[in-house]
Amino acid sequence: MNITWHDHGIGKKGREKLLGQKAVLLWFTGLSGSGKSTIASGLQKKLMAEGKLCYILDGDNIRHGLNSDLGFGAADREENIRRIGEVGRLFVDAAVITIVSFISPYKKDRDKVRSLLGKHFIEVFVKCSIDECEKRDPKGLYVKARNGEIPDFTGVSAPYEEPLNAEIVVDSDRLSVEECVSRVYDYLCKLQ
Amino acid sequence: MNITWHDHGIGKKGREKLLGQKAVLLWFTGLSGSGKSTIASGLQKKLMAEGKLCYILDGDNIRHGLNSDLGFGAADREENIRRIGEVGRLFVDAAVITIVSFISPYKKDRDKVRSLLGKHFIEVFVKCSIDECEKRDPKGLYVKARNGEIPDFTGVSAPYEEPLNAEIVVDSDRLSVEECVSRVYDYLCKLQ
Repeated sequence: MNITWHDHGIGKKGREKLLGQKAVLLWFTGLSGSGKSTIASGLQKKLMAEGKLCYILDGDNIRHGLNSDLGFGAADREENIRRIGEVGRLFVDAAVITIVSFISPYKKDRDKVRSLLGKHFIEVFVKCSIDECEKRDPKGLYVKARNGEIPDFTGVSAPYEEPLNAEIVVDSDRLSVEECVSRVYDYLCKLQ
Repeated sequence: MNITWHDHGIGKKGREKLLGQKAVLLWFTGLSGSGKSTIASGLQKKLMAEGKLCYILDGDNIRHGLNSDLGFGAADREENIRRIGEVGRLFVDAAVITIVSFISPYKKDRDKVRSLLGKHFIEVFVKCSIDECEKRDPKGLYVKARNGEIPDFTGVSAPYEEPLNAEIVVDSDRLSVEECVSRVYDYLCKLQ
């Protein structure tokens, strides 16, 4: 391969100093309807209010652009996560506090991203029972899944592998959105 | 497709206000050895010194990560540029002044990224004669290309389509690196 790595002489540290923050990748995993996007959004607002630059790499949004060529088969799902992980790595290198909000049901896939980001990977398990998620059903997806309109739906017809060693666990069926946001925010403050 | 778009209630404008800058994608195109990376690096230093957050999406670096699954055939080269464009779009949305340094020899490919980014796409043509690039040959690639060790090498055995309507043209065989950096910087200042 005739390619060489350019450092460009500034580096993550310089950018973190400029922004006055330490960058990490917060990886929100959990069932559909568990509150990942809502908590991510609340966290972003809180961080921005504190003058911290934060960006949400939303799994759904990326499906519209970067990963619009990918389907929902096993290989494509794996590639989808790989690319989100790689983009997350670039964002963290740019010194942005980066949030990924993505069901990501398989431990293997999440661990791949973890190995890519090392200590900058912070797994946030948004823990909510399937019953509660199905009761909320904000996008009406559980109804469709139960009717067989969506195949391989996580929690219904496909497995969700709970994280065993997540850096942060928020029980979103027990805590309010504000409380969940605070849990993650407090963890971040310790890193800064 | 069971996917919906999340705005997350902050938006590019909020982030631009936080950073005190307007984000664009500066797309550096030109022959190998024309000085793209050097000028990009100089521009980054200048921007950072002014307190502006800037990030270089280097074509070579991305080959190591996000696009490590891609080869150098026609379809893969096109996909390579598409993904860089999509990642650039995410970075601009994050309010980061984003620099892409990439030979990108085909007008069609560059125009695709332009249509993706709209007014946020700023094409910077780093104009340098093939003779001068070959004389510099910083990575020793022209020698290899002339020896037939690298097939389809832009400017030697593959075409380079010069931009006809680039927002910025810097004659890097006539101007110093500092002068080239200033040209781009001055253009950016008018946008801020």
